[in-house]
Amino acid sequence: MKRSLKLRAVVSPTPTIIAAAYDENGKADACTLAFYTPTSHVPPCLTIAINATAKRKTLKSILHSGAFTIGYPNVDQATEADWIGIASGYDHDKIAEVGWTTTKAEKVNAPVINELKLSIECKVVNIVTIGSHTQITAEVVNIQSDEDILDERGKYSLEKLRPLIYDEEKRRYLAAGEKVADAFKVGLAFRRGESRL
Amino acid sequence: MKRSLKLRAVVSPTPTIIAAAYDENGKADACTLAFYTPTSHVPPCLTIAINATAKRKTLKSILHSGAFTIGYPNVDQATEADWIGIASGYDHDKIAEVGWTTTKAEKVNAPVINELKLSIECKVVNIVTIGSHTQITAEVVNIQSDEDILDERGKYSLEKLRPLIYDEEKRRYLAAGEKVADAFKVGLAFRRGESRL
Repeated sequence: MKRSLKLRAVVSPTPTIIAAAYDENGKADACTLAFYTPTSHVPPCLTIAINATAKRKTLKSILHSGAFTIGYPNVDQATEADWIGIASGYDHDKIAEVGWTTTKAEKVNAPVINELKLSIECKVVNIVTIGSHTQITAEVVNIQSDEDILDERGKYSLEKLRPLIYDEEKRRYLAAGEKVADAFKVGLAFRRGESRL
Repeated sequence: MKRSLKLRAVVSPTPTIIAAAYDENGKADACTLAFYTPTSHVPPCLTIAINATAKRKTLKSILHSGAFTIGYPNVDQATEADWIGIASGYDHDKIAEVGWTTTKAEKVNAPVINELKLSIECKVVNIVTIGSHTQITAEVVNIQSDEDILDERGKYSLEKLRPLIYDEEKRRYLAAGEKVADAFKVGLAFRRGESRL
């Protein structure tokens, strides 16, 4: 039995990421976001959406500088990530308040948060405002990772990155769970004409 | 110690969703996607990105019909979801092959996959192609849910929806994990000036 629910931009589950940019004075701003997705393989691009109707200093800084980084907070950084999503950069020096530090990115004019183990340097290529949010698509021009989350092939492991998943419906953070199946593989059972039962 | 990684559109972790649309003959197409995010609260909108350089019949169907649904496969549907992401609708009747069925959506001209417990009906409002992928932003005009994933307040539970998380880096599906913290709450420790240690 299907039932219609109250309309909302269903956002469960989504990754939790922190976007960071320099303001016009070169000060690092950051905000925690759930509205994020990769959007192109060639060249590699990603898109974030930030509320344009609210007080969002990081949005202004990204539009000013044309660059930002995104980083993945881990399950031990939920408190810091949550505060960076709650407070406004107009009123708080959020990065300093949570005890974090930044270094200028290698390829773009944006801050990398040193305490995040995986950071992506992004150059803005498209901006469009639809509804309440501004969508910013950016090309990935560098990815920085801590060594300790990489395997011998240079691939990071979610078991070591331990990213935060956001559950908007119940307003909570979750960890990523156990492996269910191999992608681009388990489904081949249907090509072989096998029943999965 | 930070290290630069090979460039890619880092997509770990992302939700796994299935987009469905009618082609010009009214036949239901579907494809599994990891490039998806909510993008506006007011009105509720979401954005998907589909590879425009590859054979993607569902993309053509969405551009033709101006509407689609997205649905959430669960951990028991990884095999079906994977096949719908592997095969092309030009060569396969994927929905029938996995034993699924569709019903016309209530508010848009698009198919709802009956076997998915949460489906969102979407009306296309913006299209832009950046890099290899076409980004389609759509307004959420209806959400259909099976009763058995809802709580008494009409909110769905990820513990009952059991969505698939996609890990591009290791090409596998994961389950959502355990609760880490309450969002918009745990971070307030910093407002109170408390140390979290």
